[in-house]
Amino acid sequence: MKKFMCENFLLSTETARKLYDDVAKNLPIYDYHCHLDAREIYENKEFTDIGEMWLKHDHYKWRLMRQNGVDEYFITGGASFFEKFEKFVECVEFAIGNPLYHWCHMELRRYFDCDLILKKENIKVIWEQCAKFKYTPQKLIEMSNVAVICTTDAPESDLKYHNLRNGFGTKVLPTFRPSLRNVDIDYLLERIEFFHRSGCRLSDHGLDAFDDDSMNTLRILAEEYGRRGWVMQLHIGALRNNNVAEFARLGGDIGYDSVNDMNIAAEINGLLGSVENLPKTILYSLNPAHNAVLASVTGNFRNVQHGSAWWFNDHIDGMTEQMKTLANLGALNTFIGMLTDSRSFLSYPRHDYFRRILCDIIGNWVEGGKFPGDWETLSTIVRGICFDNAKKYFGIEI
Amino acid sequence: MKKFMCENFLLSTETARKLYDDVAKNLPIYDYHCHLDAREIYENKEFTDIGEMWLKHDHYKWRLMRQNGVDEYFITGGASFFEKFEKFVECVEFAIGNPLYHWCHMELRRYFDCDLILKKENIKVIWEQCAKFKYTPQKLIEMSNVAVICTTDAPESDLKYHNLRNGFGTKVLPTFRPSLRNVDIDYLLERIEFFHRSGCRLSDHGLDAFDDDSMNTLRILAEEYGRRGWVMQLHIGALRNNNVAEFARLGGDIGYDSVNDMNIAAEINGLLGSVENLPKTILYSLNPAHNAVLASVTGNFRNVQHGSAWWFNDHIDGMTEQMKTLANLGALNTFIGMLTDSRSFLSYPRHDYFRRILCDIIGNWVEGGKFPGDWETLSTIVRGICFDNAKKYFGIEI
Amino acid sequence: MKKFMCENFLLSTETARKLYDDVAKNLPIYDYHCHLDAREIYENKEFTDIGEMWLKHDHYKWRLMRQNGVDEYFITGGASFFEKFEKFVECVEFAIGNPLYHWCHMELRRYFDCDLILKKENIKVIWEQCAKFKYTPQKLIEMSNVAVICTTDAPESDLKYHNLRNGFGTKVLPTFRPSLRNVDIDYLLERIEFFHRSGCRLSDHGLDAFDDDSMNTLRILAEEYGRRGWVMQLHIGALRNNNVAEFARLGGDIGYDSVNDMNIAAEINGLLGSVENLPKTILYSLNPAHNAVLASVTGNFRNVQHGSAWWFNDHIDGMTEQMKTLANLGALNTFIGMLTDSRSFLSYPRHDYFRRILCDIIGNWVEGGKFPGDWETLSTIVRGICFDNAKKYFGIEI
Repeated sequence: MKKFMCENFLLSTETARKLYDDVAKNLPIYDYHCHLDAREIYENKEFTDIGEMWLKHDHYKWRLMRQNGVDEYFITGGASFFEKFEKFVECVEFAIGNPLYHWCHMELRRYFDCDLILKKENIKVIWEQCAKFKYTPQKLIEMSNVAVICTTDAPESDLKYHNLRNGFGTKVLPTFRPSLRNVDIDYLLERIEFFHRSGCRLSDHGLDAFDDDSMNTLRILAEEYGRRGWVMQLHIGALRNNNVAEFARLGGDIGYDSVNDMNIAAEINGLLGSVENLPKTILYSLNPAHNAVLASVTGNFRNVQHGSAWWFNDHIDGMTEQMKTLANLGALNTFIGMLTDSRSFLSYPRHDYFRRILCDIIGNWVEGGKFPGDWETLSTIVRGICFDNAKKYFGIEI
Repeated sequence: MKKFMCENFLLSTETARKLYDDVAKNLPIYDYHCHLDAREIYENKEFTDIGEMWLKHDHYKWRLMRQNGVDEYFITGGASFFEKFEKFVECVEFAIGNPLYHWCHMELRRYFDCDLILKKENIKVIWEQCAKFKYTPQKLIEMSNVAVICTTDAPESDLKYHNLRNGFGTKVLPTFRPSLRNVDIDYLLERIEFFHRSGCRLSDHGLDAFDDDSMNTLRILAEEYGRRGWVMQLHIGALRNNNVAEFARLGGDIGYDSVNDMNIAAEINGLLGSVENLPKTILYSLNPAHNAVLASVTGNFRNVQHGSAWWFNDHIDGMTEQMKTLANLGALNTFIGMLTDSRSFLSYPRHDYFRRILCDIIGNWVEGGKFPGDWETLSTIVRGICFDNAKKYFGIEI
Repeated sequence: MKKFMCENFLLSTETARKLYDDVAKNLPIYDYHCHLDAREIYENKEFTDIGEMWLKHDHYKWRLMRQNGVDEYFITGGASFFEKFEKFVECVEFAIGNPLYHWCHMELRRYFDCDLILKKENIKVIWEQCAKFKYTPQKLIEMSNVAVICTTDAPESDLKYHNLRNGFGTKVLPTFRPSLRNVDIDYLLERIEFFHRSGCRLSDHGLDAFDDDSMNTLRILAEEYGRRGWVMQLHIGALRNNNVAEFARLGGDIGYDSVNDMNIAAEINGLLGSVENLPKTILYSLNPAHNAVLASVTGNFRNVQHGSAWWFNDHIDGMTEQMKTLANLGALNTFIGMLTDSRSFLSYPRHDYFRRILCDIIGNWVEGGKFPGDWETLSTIVRGICFDNAKKYFGIEI
C-alpha cells in the first residue's frame, strides 16, 4: 500500500520514477494556452487568501459544490471567502476519484508547505497555514518555473499589458481568439497584423458547431495563419451555458457547460483539406469518444497535433487515454504535451500531474517488455513531450 | 492465482476486502428500478424449477443461446424447461467474459447452495440440487434483504397488487412509465395523481428518440413531477425490436434490441434547461460512449444523477467505466448506485457484483496512494453509494 | 522488469503462457481477409530488399514518417529504398506505443533472424542482416503456416491467378468487392456467379456512408449472398482521401484516411432487418466508439459477427477493447478472430500478436478468479478463436 500522494505519486515502476526524477520534474513549463489575465500579471497585486485564490473564478470547484448540493450563496453568492472555503472543503473531502482532489492537495504542498488532508476537521488549520504565505501572480509564476505564457485575448484587446517584462522573467504573449460568427473579416485581418506585431504567434477558436458562417471565417483565417507561420488551435465539442436560468442570472463561464457529442470527422477533415496554406494546427475535443478521430487526423495533414486532454478530460484516465490513443494511431514522441487552460495562478502543478502520468505510462511499457529500456531514447521522448516539442513547434524565441 | 469466484471475488486489495466485508456486504438493497411483477409478488406462487426461473423470461440468456447457434425451439419454443436448461448450460459453459457467467454462478451459490461449475457434465446434478429448494417470490426477496421495490407500470395499471404488504416486509411501490407519443396529456396527469396516491414517487421513460412529440410530452410531465417531488428517470439510447421478422412473430422484449448511437448532448441539456420546475432526474444511456456527456450534465442542473451502467453495460467493465467517468467529471460520492432492472426474482446478487466492483475501484485508489485510507470517509462513501444516497434521494419512507 | 519482446511478450500470467505455447502458437492462420495480390503470389518473384518489402506499399509506415516530419521524397518520392529504410528506422526508433514498433521487430525476428533494435546506429547492420535472406511471396506464406488466403478483388477481375496452386500448399481464393454506387446490378449478379464458380465464398464492402444508392445495392446483393451461402463483410467508418491536394497528386490508399464518426446503429440494424435471406455477416468499424453497437447487433440476427479490431485499431488496446466488448455483450467463444487486412507478405506475425493478446486476456480472467482454470474449456475457446471458428463459419474446404 502506497502512502497517499507520496513522493512517488502515480509512479508505479522504477523506470517511471527515474524518468520523472531525472528528466521530467525540473523542466520548465511551456504554457502555450491559458486564461490568465495579462493585466493581473503586470499589476501583480497580492492575493488576499486561499479562499479568493481557489474560489473566486474556478468553475471546476463551483460545479463540485453544486453536485454536492451546496447552496449558491456559498458558490457565486455573497458568502465570505472563508465560508466558501469551508463549504468547498466539506465537498472535496469526499471527492474521491476527482482530479480536483489531487490538484488541491498538490497546490497546498507546492505553494503553502501544507500536507494536511482537506477535511472538515482541518479547515481552520489549513486556512491559517495558507495565510502565512503572501503571493502575487509573478511570484507564483516564478516559483512554477514557467518559460512562456500565452494568454487568450479578444481581437479588440489593446494588449498593453503583454510584452512588458517589468523585471519579470517569463515572457507573456497574447493569443488571438476571435468569435467565428457575424464577424468583419477585414477587421480581424487588421487585428491579426496588430497581434503579430505584439509577438502573437497563436490563435484559438472554440468550435462548438460547424455552421457555414464559422467554417467560412475559419478558412479565411487559417490561410492567413498559414502565411504568417502561426499555430491555429481548435477547441471542439463544448456545449455551453446549458442552465438557461442561471446563465441569464450569472452569465457565461460559471460552470454550466457540457461535453457535446456532435459528429466531427468529416467536418474537420473537410476544413483542413480545403485550406491551401494550412497552418500548424492543434485539435482538441472535449469528448473522449473523439480521440480516435483526432489522432487519425494527425496523419492526414502535416503539422497537425492531437491536443492534450482538455477541461473535463484533464484527469488520470482522460490524459492516459488521449496519450495512448495518440501513441496507437500517431506519433506520441512528437506530442507537444500538456496545456494549462486555467484561470488560476495556482494551477501549474497540473503539469506535474501530467508529467507523472506520462512517465508512468512509459514506465509500464518499458517494464512490461513493450519498449526497450534505452535511456537515451526514453529521456529524449520524455523531454520532448514535457518541453522540447512545444518549443520547436511554436518556434517562439524565449 | 485466485480461485474461481472465491470469497474475495473481484476484491483485489485489502482495503477493498475490508470495505466489502465490513460495510457493503450486509447493507439492504434499495431496488428503485426493476421490472418485477407486483401481482407475482402478491400471489407468491412457488416456482417449478430452475429452468423456469432462468429461462422463461430472460432475454439476456436467450441472446446468448442465439449467439451460440441454439435453435429457437430451445429458446422461446416448445422444448421443456429441462431441455432449455440443458442447452443454456452448454452455452454458458463457454461464455467467458460475459456477466451471465458470473450472475448464474452467484445465483446458484446464493440461493441453491451449489458451487458446481455450469458445464455439460454437471447439468443433471445442478438441476437436482436446485430442485431441493422450493422458492416463492417473497421468499427470494426476503433472502435478498431488499428494503423497497419500485416496479415499472403502465399508466392504465390499477396498481391493486402494490402497497399490500400481506405480511411481507418489503415495500412494493409503483413507477409511472407512460409512452411519450400519441398520448392524452390530461389522462396522464390524472393517472399521475392516482399513482401518487398509491405511493408512487418515481417515473420512468424510454427515450429512444428526440422527436417533438416525445419532447413536448416530457416537458409537461417533468413540470408535474417537479411540483410533486417525484424523481424522473430517462433511459436513453435503446434501439428496439431490430429483428423485424422475429418481432412480428414473438413481439417485444425478446432480445432483439441494440445499443443506439444517436447524438444526445444538445437534446438532453436543451430538455432539462427548458423545464422550469426541474424534478430530480436520473439519466441512463445504453451507449457507453455517452458516459462523459451524461456525467457532465450532472454539473449543469441541481439533483441530476448519472444513472448506473444499464442493461448491456451491466458488467465489470461497464460499471467500472460509468463510475470512473462519474468520479472524474462529477461527484461519485453522491451516486445513488446500482439498479436491478430485472424481470427475475433471482437477480439480486447483481447488487453484490456491483458492490464488489465499487469496493475494488476504491481499494485500488487507496492502495495506489490516490486517496487517503481514512476509514470514516471511505465507509461513508461506500455506505452512501450502496444504500444511503438512494434513500435520501428518493425520500420515500421505508 | 520484463526483457523487451522476450519469449513471453504480452503474456503476463502462467495461464496465458501455457495457452499460447500449447494451443495458439502453432495453429495455422486462416487469412480470410487481406489485400495481397494473387498475381504476385502466382508469379512468386523474389523481393529485392527489406526497404522494398517494408516501404513500397505500406501506408501505415508512410503515415508514421509524415507524422515525424519526413520529407515526401523519402516516403512516396524518388529516394532509394535504402534511403527510405534509413528515414523510416529513424522514426520507428521513437515510435513508443505504436503497433508498428512491435510489428517491425516481430518481422525482423521471425523472417530475418535479427533481434536488433531498430535505431539509427543499427540501420546498416540490420539492412545487411536482412539481405542474407532471399524471399518470395510463396516462401513467406509457407513459413507463416497459412491455410487459406482470401484476397480482395474488383468485380471485373478475371481471377486468372486464383485457384492455381502451382505446387503451392495454400489455397488462394478471391473475395468479391464491388463498389456500391452507380452500379449495374445485373452485371454484378453475373460476376457473383463467375466468382462463385472460381471458389469465392466471401464478399466485402466499404460502407463509408448510408446513402440510398449504397443501401439499395447492398440489400439486393445481400439476398444473393444469402442464397449462395456466402459471407458478407461490411467495413464501416472509414473516411478516405482527406488530403485533397495529395490525393490529386498520388491517388488513393496512400495514407490520408481517417476514422469516421457517423451514426450507424439504426442504419445497420435497419439494413440487416430488411434482408429476408440474411447471409452470414461480419461487421467491422474503424471507430472504437462503435464497438458496443456492433457487439450488440450480434444478438439481433443469426450468424452475425463483430469483426476484429481493424486498421487503425489493430493494436493492443484496440484488440483488447474489441474482444472485451464482444465478451461483455456477446459470445467471445464464437468469434472468428483476427484478420490480416494487409498488402504485405511480411505481416503474418500480426496473428501472433493477436494470439498473445487473446491468451493474455483469458489468462488474466482465469488467474483473477473470474473464470475456472479448466483446461479443456479454455483450450477449446482459444483454438476456436484462433482457427476453428473461422473454418466452421466460412465452411470452405481447405
